[in-house]
Amino acid sequence: MMGWTAIVNRIQPVDLSLEQEIRDRLDNLTKPKGSLGRLEEIALRYCLVQGTTEPELGKKVIYTFAADHGVVEEGVSAFPSEVTVQMVRNMLAGGAAVNVLARHAGIEVRIVDIGVNDPLKDAAGLIRRKIAPGTGNIAQSPAMTEDQCYQALEVGMALATEAKEEGVTLIGTGEMGIGNTTPSSALFAALLPCEVEAVTGLGTGIDADRLAHKQTIIKQALQTNRQELGDPVRALAAVGGFEIAGICGLILGAAAHHISTVVDGFISTAGALAAWKMCPVVREYLFFSHLSAETGHRRFFDRLGVRPLLDLKMRLGEGTGSALAMFLIEAAVRTYKEMATFDTAGITQKVSSS
Amino acid sequence: MMGWTAIVNRIQPVDLSLEQEIRDRLDNLTKPKGSLGRLEEIALRYCLVQGTTEPELGKKVIYTFAADHGVVEEGVSAFPSEVTVQMVRNMLAGGAAVNVLARHAGIEVRIVDIGVNDPLKDAAGLIRRKIAPGTGNIAQSPAMTEDQCYQALEVGMALATEAKEEGVTLIGTGEMGIGNTTPSSALFAALLPCEVEAVTGLGTGIDADRLAHKQTIIKQALQTNRQELGDPVRALAAVGGFEIAGICGLILGAAAHHISTVVDGFISTAGALAAWKMCPVVREYLFFSHLSAETGHRRFFDRLGVRPLLDLKMRLGEGTGSALAMFLIEAAVRTYKEMATFDTAGITQKVSSS
Repeated sequence: MMGWTAIVNRIQPVDLSLEQEIRDRLDNLTKPKGSLGRLEEIALRYCLVQGTTEPELGKKVIYTFAADHGVVEEGVSAFPSEVTVQMVRNMLAGGAAVNVLARHAGIEVRIVDIGVNDPLKDAAGLIRRKIAPGTGNIAQSPAMTEDQCYQALEVGMALATEAKEEGVTLIGTGEMGIGNTTPSSALFAALLPCEVEAVTGLGTGIDADRLAHKQTIIKQALQTNRQELGDPVRALAAVGGFEIAGICGLILGAAAHHISTVVDGFISTAGALAAWKMCPVVREYLFFSHLSAETGHRRFFDRLGVRPLLDLKMRLGEGTGSALAMFLIEAAVRTYKEMATFDTAGITQKVSSS
Repeated sequence: MMGWTAIVNRIQPVDLSLEQEIRDRLDNLTKPKGSLGRLEEIALRYCLVQGTTEPELGKKVIYTFAADHGVVEEGVSAFPSEVTVQMVRNMLAGGAAVNVLARHAGIEVRIVDIGVNDPLKDAAGLIRRKIAPGTGNIAQSPAMTEDQCYQALEVGMALATEAKEEGVTLIGTGEMGIGNTTPSSALFAALLPCEVEAVTGLGTGIDADRLAHKQTIIKQALQTNRQELGDPVRALAAVGGFEIAGICGLILGAAAHHISTVVDGFISTAGALAAWKMCPVVREYLFFSHLSAETGHRRFFDRLGVRPLLDLKMRLGEGTGSALAMFLIEAAVRTYKEMATFDTAGITQKVSSS
């Protein structure tokens, strides 16, 4: 298995020499030039990631990483930690939103225990990759050791390698972890960087008083771990979470294997932010599914100069945004692959305007 | 068959007495309250249109109405009129964008010849409802007679009735007609109302000179037909098109039968605008699929105070936006129908913030 350094070194910019041929083919499909809008850009990106003008549509998988967070003891969340394991079981039973949306879009959901504070006995179908039963409380200590962080990154990278081997061509990220908007906001503040207030929101539904408290706790976490924040791996270890590190590793591993990854919402974007800081070129391999209703998500997109595909005021995570966006991406690639051309359909080209 | 007056009289406001029960059920699904964002509003709307807390997901159909436009002789389009019939044949063969996207989303596409300037011999699968072989040139005359307009409306209404009888539960609009952004812009200008320049764009891809000419032609059409523009049916007859009237009738008929309709892009929205002017309550039965890249589409949404579901810079028509949005709507309804509840999944409810 390749380690983190080998994976990061393997990620290269996409081969832009293919771009003109792909655009020419898009322009010869039976539609006015450019009229499929962003679907055409998606198809182009998908081809470039695979490094081919004849892209494959294979298996689609959402990896939902689950983990617990020591910082929940500070009272930052509207739900108690026990809901993490309850929701993992709900997902394994097919009853969560991500299950419904993924079924609808023909996507498999895989639940990865990367740090849930429960042995999860008799949990059929669970992918067991627990690093530890939850992180430390970031307001008081690092979330995890640097070694644990590399382990979590490698969990994600190894899953990407397995995905490549079984013919997965589109990966979605997802997560479940009560309290995980708190480390995500801390990572945004540390790595974008920006003010804590700009990237800290209501999570699963706290009130204004608790939001102020959450902001105070995040500032305390950044203060406690201030010596670690200059490096993305150390920042991820210090104020992140196991599921966030797993997502970060999955994104890096997928890019190394030329698989497009669809980034879900606020928490997954924190993982993508860390990956981008570790390896800026990884952004060429990413699709951003949706703009979350969580405060500050757009700060990331403003910084990268990209727009996510959907804006439906969702703020659920799990991979729900990934599921919807993966449908759109497959739709875009199918137009590229399946539409008739002007020649084959015998359709008159546009008359010259001159 | 019910005529236009009977259909319009039959359309009633949705039964809001069901709203609380539907919202309670949404709030008891295993997710933070409101966290599915607009998907929750979609599920609510879909239930209200069907008038039930237990909505059915049955067959989904996009009706793509095809027609020609006399005004093309004024040089308003980048493509010649013959492309209408060529694209109809491409759609019947399954090679157009709408076919690919609808297949991907499990939607049937039905092509309706409501006014193509070609006999369309040997066109298997075509629904033949031709009123006339194209409209008159609106710059010089009305597009059609009032009687023809009622015929076109009744084509759409009858298709909605047939859809109801065969168990269709979600209808999408679509159209194909070279030149049809011109009558659509004329209808926006006449019925919103607004300045011609604000709602006239590049259509399939004209240049700036031709855009100025197109605006002049639309103003001439509004001047020529100025005595008809105070009434929505007469305006539709005077400066509309057969496919636009068909879409208008389909929307009215679907609402009368408690079927949700998904409105495609700029041209379909012109049909929806006419329907709304004829029967304002019809808007309660509509979903708007996407914000077209065509200039001025947003004027309609600003006027109604609604936001379309997608914004992907598409401007193709055919029903392509409908296909993508119908997937999202079905996704939303499936979360409502299929997700576990807090009780059944044994998940702890939110802790009180107080």
